[in-house]
Amino acid sequence: INSKLPNIETSIFAKMSKMAAEHNALNLSQGFPNFPSDPALNALVDQAMSDGYNQYAPMPGDFGLRMEISKKIENLHNHFYNPETEITITAGATQAIFTIIAATINKDDEVIIFTPAYDCYVPTVELFGGKIVPIQLIPPFYNVDWQEVDDKTSSKTKMIIINSPHNPSGSHFSEEDMLQLQDLAEKNDLLVLSDEVYEHIIFDGNIHQSASKFEALATRSFVTASFGKTFHNTGWKMGYCVAPENLMKEFQKVHQFVVFCVNHPIQKALATYLKDENHYLKLSDFYQQKRDFFLHLMRGSNFKIIPSKGTYFQMLDFSEISNDNDIAFAERLTKEHKIATIPTSVFNEGRKDFKQIRVCFAKTDETLAEAAQILKQL
Amino acid sequence: INSKLPNIETSIFAKMSKMAAEHNALNLSQGFPNFPSDPALNALVDQAMSDGYNQYAPMPGDFGLRMEISKKIENLHNHFYNPETEITITAGATQAIFTIIAATINKDDEVIIFTPAYDCYVPTVELFGGKIVPIQLIPPFYNVDWQEVDDKTSSKTKMIIINSPHNPSGSHFSEEDMLQLQDLAEKNDLLVLSDEVYEHIIFDGNIHQSASKFEALATRSFVTASFGKTFHNTGWKMGYCVAPENLMKEFQKVHQFVVFCVNHPIQKALATYLKDENHYLKLSDFYQQKRDFFLHLMRGSNFKIIPSKGTYFQMLDFSEISNDNDIAFAERLTKEHKIATIPTSVFNEGRKDFKQIRVCFAKTDETLAEAAQILKQL
Ligand SMILES: CSCCC(=O)C(=O)O
Ligand SMILES: CSCCC(=O)C(=O)O
Repeated sequence: INSKLPNIETSIFAKMSKMAAEHNALNLSQGFPNFPSDPALNALVDQAMSDGYNQYAPMPGDFGLRMEISKKIENLHNHFYNPETEITITAGATQAIFTIIAATINKDDEVIIFTPAYDCYVPTVELFGGKIVPIQLIPPFYNVDWQEVDDKTSSKTKMIIINSPHNPSGSHFSEEDMLQLQDLAEKNDLLVLSDEVYEHIIFDGNIHQSASKFEALATRSFVTASFGKTFHNTGWKMGYCVAPENLMKEFQKVHQFVVFCVNHPIQKALATYLKDENHYLKLSDFYQQKRDFFLHLMRGSNFKIIPSKGTYFQMLDFSEISNDNDIAFAERLTKEHKIATIPTSVFNEGRKDFKQIRVCFAKTDETLAEAAQILKQL
Repeated sequence: INSKLPNIETSIFAKMSKMAAEHNALNLSQGFPNFPSDPALNALVDQAMSDGYNQYAPMPGDFGLRMEISKKIENLHNHFYNPETEITITAGATQAIFTIIAATINKDDEVIIFTPAYDCYVPTVELFGGKIVPIQLIPPFYNVDWQEVDDKTSSKTKMIIINSPHNPSGSHFSEEDMLQLQDLAEKNDLLVLSDEVYEHIIFDGNIHQSASKFEALATRSFVTASFGKTFHNTGWKMGYCVAPENLMKEFQKVHQFVVFCVNHPIQKALATYLKDENHYLKLSDFYQQKRDFFLHLMRGSNFKIIPSKGTYFQMLDFSEISNDNDIAFAERLTKEHKIATIPTSVFNEGRKDFKQIRVCFAKTDETLAEAAQILKQL
């Protein structure tokens, strides 16, 4: 069989988590918490199973959950998505991202992404024959040069993918960034895929700027979010996509054949759990404490560190520690020092000039302390 | 936005289940049971959540579950799939089918399907630019004319999709059918997608002929199966795909970007539950009783009925009851007679000469009795 994706390997997350397990290393690679999800939420899932919600959910998702999502977005971003026609529950944000691209990208359509970029954007666009136009975020703060974006936009550009708060850099878009994006998208009639899975993890008093908050942007955006990232259960594989009706219609045409619908009892549980806004509004404080604790412990280390401003990732620059490239360095850390991290060149078209690894700090304080102890010896 | 799937509407299952709910009709349309899944299995899921299996599963799936699947197939069909490299757990068989097609079908590849065909095959193939070559199963027993298949196979043919036991007709492939398929696939170097979601629901002492059972066929087949259909929990959205390593490698390249992985606690629960073969070996008897009960009640009705030989579906020929086409007839049954069924022309390229509706008999005896009472009055 001829491979349709000859250059694609196993995702770095699968690779590093596997390597971590094989070498019994502390796993700070793949982005997931190592503390329990709320037992009260587990109990709601159990209740939903006992209540008999074990058969197909409606194709777009449980209506109650769609209503809660609609309310939440209206409260936070002052934009109303109609739960009947503009919201779909997905098997994680990954499935939403895949489906958005599948529903919109044709052969030779150009798609702008900002690098470093989360690893599923490029192969998914390529699977549908689209062309990636990468634009480098400018270190050390990973800012966008909007003039460059303007220059690289043409009549061939179909979509622009954004991700704020940003994985892996921990940066985020300001209101000004969003307004620039809105202008550009309008001027060039672009679709926007806004990956907002870390929407509730933003630090130092900053406010998440959702694409749904900007009126003209919202009319051309698919916004995707993740319950797994927000409620500490990445293994439940639950997320959602919101978009204006004309876009959501195309999304659902594909969604129904990708998965038809997603886990029903968990949807029922989330519909209840989401009613209490404390369950997500307190998340930024929670993770800011984790970040601060970790950075405190890392004082005096040989890594160069610019504090993460959002997400649960911290970049570590190892240029003063080793001349290895990031992949070799991350492999050595896993095998010899028993700590698994993510080499970031995989997000960056393989460029090896960034001497950065990414650690996930969604970990117990105990794990963070162990990790810092190892890392400080380097 | 220009639609990539301009001819695709909402799936018939979403439509009919919605119509059933709106008109408060007995829902015998979409294929799911209306009785509870085993509380012992629910308890295993709850246990897995309490045990902390709430973060990402390995990308191909929980290894314990893959081992149990490997053992089960080896026991039943005498073929060994390596759990390390040849098995992937999916978000239902639908996601497996989508991913198989995504991983293999290029523009202008021809894909043979047998009509009536389950509704996701055609749009998924078309999404990737493939061309459908439909071959009509011959009523009333829905047999294959293998000569016709041979005639319609050419160097352009990339894949053949089979589904036995067959939805919606209730027919199944014999050993002779499978040998014919094997010859043809070898001669023309075809891939096979074998949709075996009703593998454990086959009646009258017949034996399911899995593609994995035929040595040469297994080397070129993706086989997909469904826990939802087998364990009465279609709303958990769990299934799997098995294929030889070279094919599974391509499958996983796409799978990792479609969903990355699937629900972890349910995988843990299924790994335990699958150890007891009674949980699936008794299913044929269970559903044969349902079929027989329903057919007994339907004696003397004006529908022409050929008993289903597998799946939990029964076709009903209404040619002596109404001159309506099947869509109009099914709509009228839902709205006026308060019973929702599936019009089968949607599986048959819209052909209106088949006066058949499909009912799902995965229902309590009480529901089946109510249904028969309504249907017998027609
Ligand atoms: C889907 S596995 C990757 C998890 C994640 O979001 C990350 O580590 O960046
Ligand atoms: C995914 S909804 C359809 C369920 C089913 O298999 C059927 O009704 O044929």
